[in-house]
Order: sequence, then C-alpha cells, then structure tokens
Amino acid sequence: MTRTRSRRVYTGKVISLDVDTVSFPNGTTGELEMVRHPGASAVVPFLDELDSPDPRILLIRQYRYAAGGYLYEVPAGRLDPGETPEDCALRELNEETGYSATNLEALTTFLTTPGFTDERIHLFMATGLTEGSSSLESDEILEHYPVTLSAAVEMVRSGAVTDGKSMLGILLSAAKILR
Amino acid sequence: MTRTRSRRVYTGKVISLDVDTVSFPNGTTGELEMVRHPGASAVVPFLDELDSPDPRILLIRQYRYAAGGYLYEVPAGRLDPGETPEDCALRELNEETGYSATNLEALTTFLTTPGFTDERIHLFMATGLTEGSSSLESDEILEHYPVTLSAAVEMVRSGAVTDGKSMLGILLSAAKILR
Repeated sequence: MTRTRSRRVYTGKVISLDVDTVSFPNGTTGELEMVRHPGASAVVPFLDELDSPDPRILLIRQYRYAAGGYLYEVPAGRLDPGETPEDCALRELNEETGYSATNLEALTTFLTTPGFTDERIHLFMATGLTEGSSSLESDEILEHYPVTLSAAVEMVRSGAVTDGKSMLGILLSAAKILR
Repeated sequence: MTRTRSRRVYTGKVISLDVDTVSFPNGTTGELEMVRHPGASAVVPFLDELDSPDPRILLIRQYRYAAGGYLYEVPAGRLDPGETPEDCALRELNEETGYSATNLEALTTFLTTPGFTDERIHLFMATGLTEGSSSLESDEILEHYPVTLSAAVEMVRSGAVTDGKSMLGILLSAAKILR
C-alpha cells in the first residue's frame, strides 16, 4: 500500500485530517481518511504498594463532550512537542490529580482505532505517589474516584468504565499484579 | 457543557469532522474538534467450544495504513445505516473470514478515544462457527491467524497485539472463560 498523494483538509488544535490517495496491492487506488494525532500517555495511579493484596488506584470522573456525559477514566493527555511518553504521563498525572509519582512502569503502547487515526497511547502504572495540587485546563471538569484494583476490574466487566484506554490500563495492571 | 455552534469542516466516507463551539461550566467558551463516526462492531470468533480448556480464537493479520504495517486484530467493521451491532458483527465476521456463527455473546460497548471522536465499538464473542468463503473489500488484505485464547492473552501482554479493540476483546473473553 503506497501513498500517491496526501491532501491536508483540516489543521486543528488537537488533530489534523488528511485525505490520502493510496495504491492497493491489487492495483486499484482509493482514498483513505486519516486523522493525525501526536500521541498520548495514560497512567494508572496506584495509591497503595503494588504488593498490597488489592491495591487502590485513582480513577477520575470527567465530563466528555464526545460521550455526552461523565466517564470514569485514568489520567491521560496528549504529548507536547518533543516530550517523552514518560514525562507526559507524569505531567498529566500531576495536572489532573495533583499527585507526583516516583516510579513509572510501562504497560504497553497501543493504537486506539487504526481504521482512521494514527493515535498511539502509551500506558503506564505509577507508584510512589505524593499529593500536591492539580492544575486543570478550562475544559477539564473532574472528580477523583479512588477504588481497589479488583473493583475497577469489575467496573470494566460490568460496563461502568467505557473508555478504551482506561479499560486496558485496568485489565493489564490486574494481569500483572492480582493473583 | 453546552454547544452553541457546530461547524462541519469535512464530510467523508468513513468519518466526518465537526468543530463545535461549547460553553464550559466555568463560563468560558472554546472549540472542540469532534470526529463523527457511525460506530462499529468487533467480534472474537471462537473455533472451539467455550468450555474447552483453552479454546482457539481466529485472529486476522492485516495491513493498516495508519500503523504503516501489519496488525493482528479481531474481525471488525463499521455499522451500515440502520444495521444493528449484532448484524454488523456477523456480517463483518463473514466478509473477513468466511465464517458464519450461530451465536453471539455481548462483551461490552466502549468508546475508542473520547477526546476527539464519538466512535463506539460493540464487542462480541462468536461461537458455533461454520466455514464459508470470505468477500473482502479492495483495501482489505488479510491472513487468518488461529491461536489459543491463552496465547492471544500473552500476545496482548507482550505487545504483539497493539490494536485497542482486539486487546479488549481478548482480555474480556479471557476474563469470562479462562479459570
């Protein structure tokens, strides 16, 4: 699959949109709509030591325009230009919850929805948390929601957590930690 | 958060892009870029009975322009206008793998990346599979990749599966079935 043409149809704050003309291996050509995204980090913040029997994590509950309501999520946000995924994870954790973390452990990097965007999210667990004060942007309205990891897994299974990155962060943390 | 204005900046085959002006609870207003998507279904196809000790599932391996390479995924695709998530799951399973299924079990419905799109994916497990012939679109180039569910979980944990919906389908299936 090779690109023969790329047309930028929108350049925005968060995303840009390209319509690319590509040749398929069977000889046909077609247009693909591709949302360009700088990538993001998301972090599962652990309020207790990882070797606790069922450590608590800190979810946030925030209004999401796309969902038309409130979602339970893990702290997350876009990479700034030149920023590493680790620095982004620590910065977003601090901005959204006020917590600093002394340790990050990578869980995975995944594609959110590769049919139409190149967005990759870097997922981490954060430990060694110390409390400070948060600094939210004007479009961020959120509450803290501490919960045990096993209860968070149950929220994923029951459909109470419906945000993809948060579901993956919770399930992958549980696969690492819970026996 | 209330919308005061919506501007359609692009209408495409797969997605459309709106730039919406919204009022935040703190009295400020801002613009949000929102990719509108009709929604999709994705399905974990089981080649063996669910009560087998470690049933095999059928992954597909396909080239993804957004990833610049091949990804392991579960069969999936967009909802046609008026189509139910269940009918879409069965149709995409059949088109991409040739298999028909007699039974679908819902796993969850989730938001792929609610920061900039309203896309929801409906996730299912399919059982009672019978083989037929597939009917791929010109931009779909794919191979079948049968694997045990426990091996698929390991592919998620090791980073061999990097597609969000597929990771969630595998982990949620394993949480239901594997002991």
